[in-house]
Amino acid sequence: MNILIKNVLLDGAKTDIFIENGTILEVSPACARSADKIIDGHGKAALPSLTNGHTHAAMTLFRGFADDMPLKAWLEEKIWVLEAKLTADDVYWGARLACLEMIKNGITVFNDMYWHWEATARAVRDAKIRGFISAVFIDMFDNGKGREQIAHNRELYDLSKSYEPYVTFTFGPHAIYTVSRESLEWMRDFSAENDILIHMHLAETKSESVFSQNTYGLSPTAFLDSLGILSERYTGCHGCMLEKSDLELLARHGARLVHVPVSNLKLAVERIFPHSLVQDAGIPYCFGTDGCASNNHLDILETMKFASLLAKFCSSDPTMLPARQTFDMATQTAADIFRLGRWSIEVGASPDIILVDLKRPEFIPNFDIYSDMVYATNGSAVNTVICMGEVIMEDRIIPGEEEIMARAAEAAHDLVKR
Amino acid sequence: MNILIKNVLLDGAKTDIFIENGTILEVSPACARSADKIIDGHGKAALPSLTNGHTHAAMTLFRGFADDMPLKAWLEEKIWVLEAKLTADDVYWGARLACLEMIKNGITVFNDMYWHWEATARAVRDAKIRGFISAVFIDMFDNGKGREQIAHNRELYDLSKSYEPYVTFTFGPHAIYTVSRESLEWMRDFSAENDILIHMHLAETKSESVFSQNTYGLSPTAFLDSLGILSERYTGCHGCMLEKSDLELLARHGARLVHVPVSNLKLAVERIFPHSLVQDAGIPYCFGTDGCASNNHLDILETMKFASLLAKFCSSDPTMLPARQTFDMATQTAADIFRLGRWSIEVGASPDIILVDLKRPEFIPNFDIYSDMVYATNGSAVNTVICMGEVIMEDRIIPGEEEIMARAAEAAHDLVKR
Repeated sequence: MNILIKNVLLDGAKTDIFIENGTILEVSPACARSADKIIDGHGKAALPSLTNGHTHAAMTLFRGFADDMPLKAWLEEKIWVLEAKLTADDVYWGARLACLEMIKNGITVFNDMYWHWEATARAVRDAKIRGFISAVFIDMFDNGKGREQIAHNRELYDLSKSYEPYVTFTFGPHAIYTVSRESLEWMRDFSAENDILIHMHLAETKSESVFSQNTYGLSPTAFLDSLGILSERYTGCHGCMLEKSDLELLARHGARLVHVPVSNLKLAVERIFPHSLVQDAGIPYCFGTDGCASNNHLDILETMKFASLLAKFCSSDPTMLPARQTFDMATQTAADIFRLGRWSIEVGASPDIILVDLKRPEFIPNFDIYSDMVYATNGSAVNTVICMGEVIMEDRIIPGEEEIMARAAEAAHDLVKR
Repeated sequence: MNILIKNVLLDGAKTDIFIENGTILEVSPACARSADKIIDGHGKAALPSLTNGHTHAAMTLFRGFADDMPLKAWLEEKIWVLEAKLTADDVYWGARLACLEMIKNGITVFNDMYWHWEATARAVRDAKIRGFISAVFIDMFDNGKGREQIAHNRELYDLSKSYEPYVTFTFGPHAIYTVSRESLEWMRDFSAENDILIHMHLAETKSESVFSQNTYGLSPTAFLDSLGILSERYTGCHGCMLEKSDLELLARHGARLVHVPVSNLKLAVERIFPHSLVQDAGIPYCFGTDGCASNNHLDILETMKFASLLAKFCSSDPTMLPARQTFDMATQTAADIFRLGRWSIEVGASPDIILVDLKRPEFIPNFDIYSDMVYATNGSAVNTVICMGEVIMEDRIIPGEEEIMARAAEAAHDLVKR
């Protein structure tokens, strides 16, 4: 499959881009090659696609069902009650809706943790994007449950091969207060042996810190360090409560982080991700939306604006986390974390690509495309999406979207009545 | 001019809405009246339009020109240098672009403060929306300049009559550190005699507080109180540094506030608008985007999400500033501040109306339209806008938009080269 994008703006210059099987073979002002598919790039900018570093895709079904509530009541009275009733079919349509929403917002790579692993994997394969999918691993310190989860994860790991190249299996140990030491140690070993990424909530709330101190006499990060589970395969999400000593441990092991600002503000978790300290420690991080029960929008550009502005405000320094850096973190740094290689539009690289419609008021005067992407627009400006060498959205149209929206709406409304 | 909207969702129920000369005459499941203009509301929700409580419209021209800079260098080396070169024609096209962008984001009412008053007034009239327009009043404590500005404002007040009903003249004393006591006293009296609203930056930065203490021995608010300028005609914008004692003074006089969170974060002004204290003091407030040099997007729904989430986070209480309250503040409270009457979709009221496209992933499953508006979507979901009984945007198309974008882009690029 060849794609030729004609007359598109790349870093401000009009150019043609020729792509074969997902790899960019030519970037030049006038490409003479013929192609299976030609896209008119006039009035659009070409950019590498965005990554959503932390979400629970199928929670789109809960969007707007329970907002503005205290955390405990929200979880116990609303979210967990619905989750107990979820079927694989619900999760499939919820995850399809999430994939649809992410594609519309220029996201082709996402990092997921949820129930009914295979339903999410099917949704990702059918949506033709890249999902790093983990099953929620919770054993509540019960050895029997732990053994069940381990067996289940072994099966899913084997099963995941049949969902390649769309799906990559990852481990999803929920958090240090829901997973036993023994299970974490098993994941540590299996992850090292099979080179599997680990996706975990880390240092999200004060109560997590309190639990960790009371149970292990250590901060969550120091406890994980004591288990030897921190490595370049480990990605900790949220990180609001991280202290300098935690960051030193994470940096020493090459671990990575995901900043999830919108969810942290909405759930009022008391502290914000310490951008300045994380940067000083040299820890690579990207951005995540969280699931739709606590955000409620899978628009990573919106999340990036929140992150950049909070970094400035919290350090009383308007030069912090500037637009270009923010954009690069959501693209190249994210690609490094998920091992996707060079994620820029240049010959020999194989990034997914988005075309952004510049004929919108917020792109006037368009002095700086990175500033406009991070500060002035949102995901609705994404016009065309190319993932793994295939055009999956063109002129904002995604084949089958009406059915996905109808089926997901049906599943959600049925779920609350069940 | 009659408009009939058929089969639109109003608070979840399918209904017809009949509007004559801007006033709603019928809201019923099956309206039998004929109309000059019939709009198919299928798959859309009807809502009152949004207000942008604080902006500098023509600063769209500076969007993306200077981000991520220290405040002083940003102002002195970038913004003021450009502003010194601005012509009335630049301001007209910049303000036209702002109006275009605001309409696309569902805003039909905005509160402006900028140079070249008449250019902005013309833009508002040509865009057919409602502008509360002030000329920036700065005299830098120079009596001669003060007298010039007073004469100029008298002229503009008279001139403003010819721009009715689109334009309402307001006073725009820039801030307590740029306007003399004598000029403020003149505005106080002229505003009272002629019932003119006053639009002012208030308690935005620490340096403003320091100036006020050093010069007047009072906080900015206490100084304004001592002049007798606080009243229900007074609207203070930003308010980041407001203390409880200031809020008591504002409340006692019935003054109003505008919360401008995105700009405050981006410029890293050190403190955030104290929502909880303002609410306790019973002071009505709405939301503002600020100008595009410091936001950079005139999307008030985005601003509302920032405001609601910051209120929760700053008070460690996820129940603060819930979605419905946030939405009502951007519509009815704003209409109260700008004296526009009942701003809800019911018989006898004359609100401007927006139709929002629900056939988008972020509106699935649509459990709560107010939650979806504030937390899940952005201005790009606005499909149709009716202002003063006239359809000014339909299916996201606004007549003349290509010319506006082209002329504004030309003005901006020419300005930086001049």
